[in-house]
Amino acid sequence: MTDMTPTKFDFNTVTGLSKTAKPIARPLSTLKGYFHDAAAFDAALSAGDPLVYEYFDMGVPETDGNVAYGTTSIKPGKIGDEYYMTKGHFHTVLDTAEVYYCLSGHGGMMMETPEGKVEWREMKTGDAVYVPGRWAHRSINISLTEPFVMFFAFPGHAGHDYGTIATKGFRKLMVERDGKPVMVDNPRWNG
Amino acid sequence: MTDMTPTKFDFNTVTGLSKTAKPIARPLSTLKGYFHDAAAFDAALSAGDPLVYEYFDMGVPETDGNVAYGTTSIKPGKIGDEYYMTKGHFHTVLDTAEVYYCLSGHGGMMMETPEGKVEWREMKTGDAVYVPGRWAHRSINISLTEPFVMFFAFPGHAGHDYGTIATKGFRKLMVERDGKPVMVDNPRWNG
Ligand SMILES: [Mn+2]
Ligand SMILES: [Mn+2]
Repeated sequence: MTDMTPTKFDFNTVTGLSKTAKPIARPLSTLKGYFHDAAAFDAALSAGDPLVYEYFDMGVPETDGNVAYGTTSIKPGKIGDEYYMTKGHFHTVLDTAEVYYCLSGHGGMMMETPEGKVEWREMKTGDAVYVPGRWAHRSINISLTEPFVMFFAFPGHAGHDYGTIATKGFRKLMVERDGKPVMVDNPRWNG
Repeated sequence: MTDMTPTKFDFNTVTGLSKTAKPIARPLSTLKGYFHDAAAFDAALSAGDPLVYEYFDMGVPETDGNVAYGTTSIKPGKIGDEYYMTKGHFHTVLDTAEVYYCLSGHGGMMMETPEGKVEWREMKTGDAVYVPGRWAHRSINISLTEPFVMFFAFPGHAGHDYGTIATKGFRKLMVERDGKPVMVDNPRWNG
């Protein structure tokens, strides 16, 4: 039984940013090993340490019955031919879902199951994607000009398994070909 | 273990409405007994049956680990001096939370616990309110000109107890006094 008081926070409906809460930053230096082109990663990092994405952790108790929520903003950019993206993860409690609602921008959700099913859902402003339990998920910004911003919500007890993706990667990548996003096999997939 | 495929739906980021999904309508006739001024209710109903609010049920499985989500739009208007509002409910699994994110408009969340704590959070575009487990919740539109639109998410297994509020009402109401919203005791509260 909880004894929590209702809370209120602001998130700009376009940028996702808050006047009262501070996001967690994920600069390029925190993403070593995630992009397929290691030379392009090293070159981009030596030229600076650009912000790739940021997101909010609102500190909701990590228990069943609570709903963790916040916004995430993936910035526009590429490492080599690969679009800026989040690390991606499974939930530790594997069979827990997550819903994402796109507030602005143009990107998508890359998803895969442990058994190897893969799904990609392109998202524009106003699109909600439901990531069912068992699906790893990574947000990818396929615009090179504007941030890809989403509101998200998932069960408080879901937990995050980043290690599986850090080790194996996703089976598919989103890369630019002739100026357009294309889904290709991950040449370094290690499943 | 689920075997669901990811889904995508659109919700306009201002109106909350969808090109692909159909909302559930709550016209005034479905709200008999909810507004404190029964004569004003009868008069409004005999003049037509205006839409008070609408919301989406996306059919997410009602099991632990899933996240039910959608948008709701409470229309502008009053019955007597009382602003348009939702029925309000407890969750059947009492200790399950809900998060609301305001996409447009100006309203708020009325909340109370079974033990009688009451909280009101005013909401404008971009405000997220976290309704912890154990708190009944009702959305109220305190603008008389524009809809109050929110994205919401709650645990799939939460369930809805509408009966307690239908019988007892909320302890507090939001009414217009001198052109402004004011929280007052519910003269008909039946706890
Ligand atoms: Mn997640
Ligand atoms: Mn609810």
